[in-house]
Amino acid sequence: MNGKVLGVDLGASTARAALVDRNTGEVIAAHKQLLSDRSPAAVVDVVAHALREVAGKDLESFDRIGVGVCGQCLGSTGSVILAPNLGWRDVPFGPMLSRAIGGARVRLANDLAAIAWGENRFGAGKGFSDVFVVFVGSGIGSGLVLGGRLNEGSGGVAGEFGHVKVQPIRPATRPRRCGCGAMSCLEAYTSGMNVAARVREDLDQGISSLVRELVGGDLSCINAGVVEAAYGRGDPYAREIWQEAGELLGTALANFVTVLNPARLILGGGVWLGCPLLATLVREAFEGKVSRSATLGFALENAFLGDEAGVIGAALLE
Amino acid sequence: MNGKVLGVDLGASTARAALVDRNTGEVIAAHKQLLSDRSPAAVVDVVAHALREVAGKDLESFDRIGVGVCGQCLGSTGSVILAPNLGWRDVPFGPMLSRAIGGARVRLANDLAAIAWGENRFGAGKGFSDVFVVFVGSGIGSGLVLGGRLNEGSGGVAGEFGHVKVQPIRPATRPRRCGCGAMSCLEAYTSGMNVAARVREDLDQGISSLVRELVGGDLSCINAGVVEAAYGRGDPYAREIWQEAGELLGTALANFVTVLNPARLILGGGVWLGCPLLATLVREAFEGKVSRSATLGFALENAFLGDEAGVIGAALLE
Repeated sequence: MNGKVLGVDLGASTARAALVDRNTGEVIAAHKQLLSDRSPAAVVDVVAHALREVAGKDLESFDRIGVGVCGQCLGSTGSVILAPNLGWRDVPFGPMLSRAIGGARVRLANDLAAIAWGENRFGAGKGFSDVFVVFVGSGIGSGLVLGGRLNEGSGGVAGEFGHVKVQPIRPATRPRRCGCGAMSCLEAYTSGMNVAARVREDLDQGISSLVRELVGGDLSCINAGVVEAAYGRGDPYAREIWQEAGELLGTALANFVTVLNPARLILGGGVWLGCPLLATLVREAFEGKVSRSATLGFALENAFLGDEAGVIGAALLE
Repeated sequence: MNGKVLGVDLGASTARAALVDRNTGEVIAAHKQLLSDRSPAAVVDVVAHALREVAGKDLESFDRIGVGVCGQCLGSTGSVILAPNLGWRDVPFGPMLSRAIGGARVRLANDLAAIAWGENRFGAGKGFSDVFVVFVGSGIGSGLVLGGRLNEGSGGVAGEFGHVKVQPIRPATRPRRCGCGAMSCLEAYTSGMNVAARVREDLDQGISSLVRELVGGDLSCINAGVVEAAYGRGDPYAREIWQEAGELLGTALANFVTVLNPARLILGGGVWLGCPLLATLVREAFEGKVSRSATLGFALENAFLGDEAGVIGAALLE
């Protein structure tokens, strides 16, 4: 299997495995499977099966496999420290998977770190040494490549961009508690899941908005896409929510670009890609706040590798 | 001169040169000189003289010299892009100095980058691969070592921590324009020079505060130390100013530690070291805002190398 590497992207509901060309980043074979049982042993079985699907009987000839996990990982030990969406805490997933597939070394990383590495090697950040990658989806996370190296932090938990603290701008916005337990995380005001939750709360309390009509009165159907649609049709409430989200996200992104001076800021995730009007507000706030000197040779770009970024990046992890 | 390296710290008013032991970081010889004329040619003369003072006739045997400059530098070209306090823009200081001292290669870096490198090699960050260094003095700047490497950014202007944008908390605080021309930079509310300016403006407009008494009515004598003294004696106005500065600084620091996950946050500079009551407020805000997961194995420490950090770090630059 010369020139080929194996990667896994372990999400909250799906495991993907892929055989990737090391020199081009191309996916040669891929297999995707839903997780019905999230216990570590069951997930090991699913991932080992997916790896066999893509590598066949050659699986045992690989001496290493990269895995991106939707949680905090300690790459050096192969342990998942905390993965709330899998319900895991301190799971030695690397060694467990290694045993199940015949001994290959398993290199674990956070999924956003793997995505950042993939986008850096063969995506929107190709050819640049300093790249900051942020995904805005149901949650918010980031990965950072500096000086051509993936930065995972001293404790393996770098990239928690969703948990930087912000000061809401809109007078009506009350401080919000994040899923992590802390107050006023960026994610609590701007991620897809939290936007849905706060709009639902407001509408529950009787605020009038086109959002209510768009979901036919069924508030459980509210999501970021509905807010985007209402904003696009001029709804004043959706405008307030989107302007605040754009300002908070754009400012936080600008602050990291100001200090880190990357060549590329790469944005992806369902909310970013699915809500272009919000993305425009974020870009406007970003441009108004970023330090001029950090924008020389800089560009903000959309993620390029799509759903495969994580599995490609994982396969290429060093 | 085996095992010895030469460094220069070029500030707005002073140039320092030092001969440093590469293996211990110890300063073997140092020379400091005021800059009376800040023209590039005059500064080259002063620095070359200072280097001769510390290296003697061995100066020409050095093949490289590190220089930290109070401005934005492009290490790869040896140019100072912008140094407002020297009045420089696009000055090829590296090549100029190199010619003046017999051809040694000159490695330029921002002064905070040099300090970060020095503190990482032989100061409060010794033994750690990931260190964030922030200095709060008349201005605010930072330097970042990640994965054991100094991060200077893709354009050489990383570290502009003073220019992250913040949202003031105190209702009476008006948005402030920073010296860089932008609105609402962190520095505009919290650096020594800006604290003095905003307190002076408030007192000019008749606000009552113990600060006025402490300077004997001469508002030109206001500085951060006076605000610290008034805060220590319970002055309500100084308390508002210090609480806001502490909250803004502590939150911004927490956000970078949350995302970068360094092993050490190292704080220094005249305002930080000279205002321990403000420092306590900053620490409190920091601890309330930083992500829990980023604090495992983490510590916030005071800079250790004092005034020599810059020249030691410059000498050791790679």
